[in-house]
Amino acid sequence: MSKKTALVISAHAADFVWRCGGAIALHQARGVDVTVVCLSYGERGESAKLWKQEGMTLDKVKDARRKEAENAAGALEAHDIRFFDLGDYPLELDRAAKDKLVDVIREVQPAFMLSHSMDDPYNTDHPYAAKIALECRMIAQAWGHKPGEKVLGAPQLYLFEPHQSEQCGWKPDTLLDITEVWDKKRAAIECMEGQQHLWHYYTNVAENRGNQFRRNSGGQSGGREAKYAEAFQSIFPKTVDEL
Amino acid sequence: MSKKTALVISAHAADFVWRCGGAIALHQARGVDVTVVCLSYGERGESAKLWKQEGMTLDKVKDARRKEAENAAGALEAHDIRFFDLGDYPLELDRAAKDKLVDVIREVQPAFMLSHSMDDPYNTDHPYAAKIALECRMIAQAWGHKPGEKVLGAPQLYLFEPHQSEQCGWKPDTLLDITEVWDKKRAAIECMEGQQHLWHYYTNVAENRGNQFRRNSGGQSGGREAKYAEAFQSIFPKTVDEL
Amino acid sequence: MSKKTALVISAHAADFVWRCGGAIALHQARGVDVTVVCLSYGERGESAKLWKQEGMTLDKVKDARRKEAENAAGALEAHDIRFFDLGDYPLELDRAAKDKLVDVIREVQPAFMLSHSMDDPYNTDHPYAAKIALECRMIAQAWGHKPGEKVLGAPQLYLFEPHQSEQCGWKPDTLLDITEVWDKKRAAIECMEGQQHLWHYYTNVAENRGNQFRRNSGGQSGGREAKYAEAFQSIFPKTVDEL
Amino acid sequence: MSKKTALVISAHAADFVWRCGGAIALHQARGVDVTVVCLSYGERGESAKLWKQEGMTLDKVKDARRKEAENAAGALEAHDIRFFDLGDYPLELDRAAKDKLVDVIREVQPAFMLSHSMDDPYNTDHPYAAKIALECRMIAQAWGHKPGEKVLGAPQLYLFEPHQSEQCGWKPDTLLDITEVWDKKRAAIECMEGQQHLWHYYTNVAENRGNQFRRNSGGQSGGREAKYAEAFQSIFPKTVDEL
Amino acid sequence: MSKKTALVISAHAADFVWRCGGAIALHQARGVDVTVVCLSYGERGESAKLWKQEGMTLDKVKDARRKEAENAAGALEAHDIRFFDLGDYPLELDRAAKDKLVDVIREVQPAFMLSHSMDDPYNTDHPYAAKIALECRMIAQAWGHKPGEKVLGAPQLYLFEPHQSEQCGWKPDTLLDITEVWDKKRAAIECMEGQQHLWHYYTNVAENRGNQFRRNSGGQSGGREAKYAEAFQSIFPKTVDEL
Amino acid sequence: MSKKTALVISAHAADFVWRCGGAIALHQARGVDVTVVCLSYGERGESAKLWKQEGMTLDKVKDARRKEAENAAGALEAHDIRFFDLGDYPLELDRAAKDKLVDVIREVQPAFMLSHSMDDPYNTDHPYAAKIALECRMIAQAWGHKPGEKVLGAPQLYLFEPHQSEQCGWKPDTLLDITEVWDKKRAAIECMEGQQHLWHYYTNVAENRGNQFRRNSGGQSGGREAKYAEAFQSIFPKTVDEL
Repeated sequence: MSKKTALVISAHAADFVWRCGGAIALHQARGVDVTVVCLSYGERGESAKLWKQEGMTLDKVKDARRKEAENAAGALEAHDIRFFDLGDYPLELDRAAKDKLVDVIREVQPAFMLSHSMDDPYNTDHPYAAKIALECRMIAQAWGHKPGEKVLGAPQLYLFEPHQSEQCGWKPDTLLDITEVWDKKRAAIECMEGQQHLWHYYTNVAENRGNQFRRNSGGQSGGREAKYAEAFQSIFPKTVDEL
Repeated sequence: MSKKTALVISAHAADFVWRCGGAIALHQARGVDVTVVCLSYGERGESAKLWKQEGMTLDKVKDARRKEAENAAGALEAHDIRFFDLGDYPLELDRAAKDKLVDVIREVQPAFMLSHSMDDPYNTDHPYAAKIALECRMIAQAWGHKPGEKVLGAPQLYLFEPHQSEQCGWKPDTLLDITEVWDKKRAAIECMEGQQHLWHYYTNVAENRGNQFRRNSGGQSGGREAKYAEAFQSIFPKTVDEL
Repeated sequence: MSKKTALVISAHAADFVWRCGGAIALHQARGVDVTVVCLSYGERGESAKLWKQEGMTLDKVKDARRKEAENAAGALEAHDIRFFDLGDYPLELDRAAKDKLVDVIREVQPAFMLSHSMDDPYNTDHPYAAKIALECRMIAQAWGHKPGEKVLGAPQLYLFEPHQSEQCGWKPDTLLDITEVWDKKRAAIECMEGQQHLWHYYTNVAENRGNQFRRNSGGQSGGREAKYAEAFQSIFPKTVDEL
Repeated sequence: MSKKTALVISAHAADFVWRCGGAIALHQARGVDVTVVCLSYGERGESAKLWKQEGMTLDKVKDARRKEAENAAGALEAHDIRFFDLGDYPLELDRAAKDKLVDVIREVQPAFMLSHSMDDPYNTDHPYAAKIALECRMIAQAWGHKPGEKVLGAPQLYLFEPHQSEQCGWKPDTLLDITEVWDKKRAAIECMEGQQHLWHYYTNVAENRGNQFRRNSGGQSGGREAKYAEAFQSIFPKTVDEL
Repeated sequence: MSKKTALVISAHAADFVWRCGGAIALHQARGVDVTVVCLSYGERGESAKLWKQEGMTLDKVKDARRKEAENAAGALEAHDIRFFDLGDYPLELDRAAKDKLVDVIREVQPAFMLSHSMDDPYNTDHPYAAKIALECRMIAQAWGHKPGEKVLGAPQLYLFEPHQSEQCGWKPDTLLDITEVWDKKRAAIECMEGQQHLWHYYTNVAENRGNQFRRNSGGQSGGREAKYAEAFQSIFPKTVDEL
Repeated sequence: MSKKTALVISAHAADFVWRCGGAIALHQARGVDVTVVCLSYGERGESAKLWKQEGMTLDKVKDARRKEAENAAGALEAHDIRFFDLGDYPLELDRAAKDKLVDVIREVQPAFMLSHSMDDPYNTDHPYAAKIALECRMIAQAWGHKPGEKVLGAPQLYLFEPHQSEQCGWKPDTLLDITEVWDKKRAAIECMEGQQHLWHYYTNVAENRGNQFRRNSGGQSGGREAKYAEAFQSIFPKTVDEL
């Protein structure tokens, strides 16, 4: 039996760090190989600090963002990170780009996938990426797409946490204890030098999701001592052997 | 460590059979003790066939319904079944009845609970029971309710399948493979002599949920061969160690 | 075969006029007997104009409201109007009051029922009445409630239009052309002397629902020339022989 | 006055069979001419069984799927079936393809239209087809689109049943009794040789929707004896003369 | 400090009149410069009356619609109106058209924006325009889009009233008193000669929103005497100094 | 003209501190008198730490909780705090208790009210309190309730933040900058000695809502430097003179 794998589809280079860095590090630590696809560098829309510097160019921004993302992936010990460089604000995938993403999905054969929330009025690239994730998952399942290749099964798609959860209609149904890999996630966060204003924010998020983990695992009557957690919304029903 | 347990809160005597009979038999088969509380016998509203008989009385209906439910519980090998006899159509719980239910919850200390959907325009007893389940779960968690007793942790509340799911705003997120205990569930269903018109309906439901189990566990590319399944909606986020 | 009938359950004495006066007059004109139940007179909360008069008492207000409602029912040629006088702001039904409403439902055996929207943050009596309508419809269907009586079938429950529709989560799925009985509805509206500020409002509503009727029945390419309409939301699926 | 007509817009060749085969046969039997448009053959994504055969090619799959769909349309006695062959997984319509669909809509002048649910996380082609149906309905209503042609009125758009209804946010409001044409629907189903795993599933669906028809048309107190039914969700309000 | 400004993004030439003409006139009267962008003239889909005339051509319709819109903008004393002439039914924006809209947004630097509801089954151009408004707002905020230009802050996006509000899932949270500029709005409405059937409709809407303004500002106990109002739904949270 | 006032309706003694302590202190600092009503002490369900002490009694818990709440109100400089002592887990208000709350509402004549979210599966007392707030607001508006008293106008009802916002269906539309009174809120928080596990949690919440305030007031292009904020959901539309 082959190794268990997972796939993250991130609209911009930094999203995977804030939103599922803990999940990446945790699964990696347990032997699950996690591949990250960054559809863009977030070079136009999520690099304000860089653009405020004298003499900045698009290529320099991309380089800087790529390095940050690679460093973060390294800190999380992610198996692989790939950059599609498709442009951002807005992100757009033509048929060839979708096919390329399908190729990666089939190559990875993920046991589960991670992407953005289905709505986000602040950032239309995010729900666009999530919709592409669903569409490409479907294509990857098609026996008539590049016949002969191994088709995809039915991996869960988890939606990771957007910046302002309630405005995005995102409701988590899964809390993941990331306490044991928190140091790695914090290290990855600190790789994102251009977005220091978010370090503290997502540390608070992790702490408060940790509190919620404790509440939902038993509360004052024996809840598990998670200090940090990440939250996810599942798209598909779970298939289980016991409740 | 004590035995794992579960608790079903059923508005009427037969609900637990159609809606979570498989879950009961399956968990029982794995050593989880399942206690069923029937808040009423469904004697007024769900016993049309009996009432069409000559000379029927309320007590006779209750007796018949109780026997059917006990037989069904037996077929499922349920650990325990209790009848609160609170009346139906409408079902009503005063403070004393709630306290009695809280007593059972604390006594059982369930790892998870099962009850009805939160809406049902056809049957207001069903969502009423679900709301009571949430309220009594909360009371059972209160350190100041009968101080000194062991308080409740934070068990999941699963909502089992209503008769017309889409009309009840019920969306399943968990599919349970009940193939190995299907014979027991069918036997329990056949204990409900007064509601033969539902035997075939809920057999169809189980088969189609089985089809959905296969789809969601891998589809044509290796989905697990579940033949029968039950579907549930979770109220609370799951707390997990891996995705 | 017995005559076709309908039943309106109105929280306060005037609600049936604004919200379904056209439906009452129209069906009456077609031989459908419509019974109106006013659960209260709206004597405390919907009679500001009367209370601003010197020397007003609760009984005087009730009398005035009752007369207005009877006059309006007369203008609509409603078959029957009954006053339960249960009090308003808040409206409350105990078990005996519910049983009395069930008695009326069974007596009338309505082909369809009409009541309020399921939410209304401005007026908690309205959704309360709608919930009671659903609950009592269910009790009226129970073979074990007053066994021997004729049980109720499965009449549609239409929710009529609240004052601020969007705030009440009310979405109409049925537009009824009331052009031919508009004069009767307007006459009924003018019976509500204490609420003149609403006459124009509900005339506007009827005109605009008429415009929507035209749009939905063919628009600029042959929409039917309805001038006045009323809008309703159905609770239950329609059972039909053709689409 | 011209003959009454209806139009089905099906993403893939087989969808119309499972989801509204009964509606097609029933209306045809009553003299309503039903035209079916298959936007694609479902050749890549819904033909797994064919692709598992040695030496299969895209054209062979299309041929096989076309024949199955034609046979099914024949079994249902559908007036006409047209294949747009636009490709699937993903389905995409450019402006010319939309114009072609508008041409058919105007040619048919349907009294009502049928298409997919507005959401479906498993299959993004389905909601895409429904959105196209709404868009092309709008274009067909425009007096300035190919001026001089007869513009479209305001036909209802019914959304037929998706595979996993609750996951698609689909809530039926119309149940259609298809008992008298069930044999034709079953015959059409059996034309879909490549998808035998679905025959039993959709027979169960038809039986259970039949049970729901009985419940909603009177239940135990005289519900109509429908054995098989199909369920639909309406997009637009119905315009009626009586409730 | 520069002058306060606002921006309206209207799918078709007339939309801004019915839906936010009062807001335009009112803010203009208070020194806020309002720019209106008409993405199309509504020449194909919203000009039925013109197309019914002999010898009509697309250019003549566009001219007529443009003149009406300019006259209406004049009546409202709008600061500026711009026509993008992108076509309607369906409206489509390619990347260049989006960039052009971003240019206007950055040029205007609006304190708030106005556009359509996020859903509208009758008119897919409307929600399309609203989605474009959100996307272009995001691009205008990107430091890397045309670096060196002044980026956009975070203006509120108000969704103005669609024709059939409840069918569009639109829920207003803001009522604007337009009594003092009603005459200007009515004059602007009367500029739309091709759509006389809507003059009365939107006058009724304004009166009834006025009634709702009174209810929500104090009701019978001192509600402000607004005679005419417009209603809006906000997309983003308001940031305030006091409640 | 009389002084502006506000009213907080808190299910348990501590809720007002975490959820709207900043709003209280801020408005007090601006001359708005804020009255807090604690419907219960949270003595049974929210005092676990106290109950774990030897020899604890219900009265001792109530005393301790009352003192904490009074201290917190003092720290916030709240105008008044009142304890209804109605019991918790579950909280229940009979007609007399509702009338008492109506008396306070009329006495205070609040410009706005604050209470809990409309749903909360963890704590049914919270939505119960919010529903009571709406109901008593309505009664306070009734001219026939204790005729002669000054009736209530139409104050906004703001729903303050629940513990797990997404699970409660709560979506904030208003962000209040509480930076200038943060020290007071923190001091009030530290009065709640029995719930130290929540101090850090709600400090994180305030910081992150502050971040969101900055985003929504201009983001990286000049967002206001709020450090701490509170978030609220409005029930009623705002009536405004400009957008």
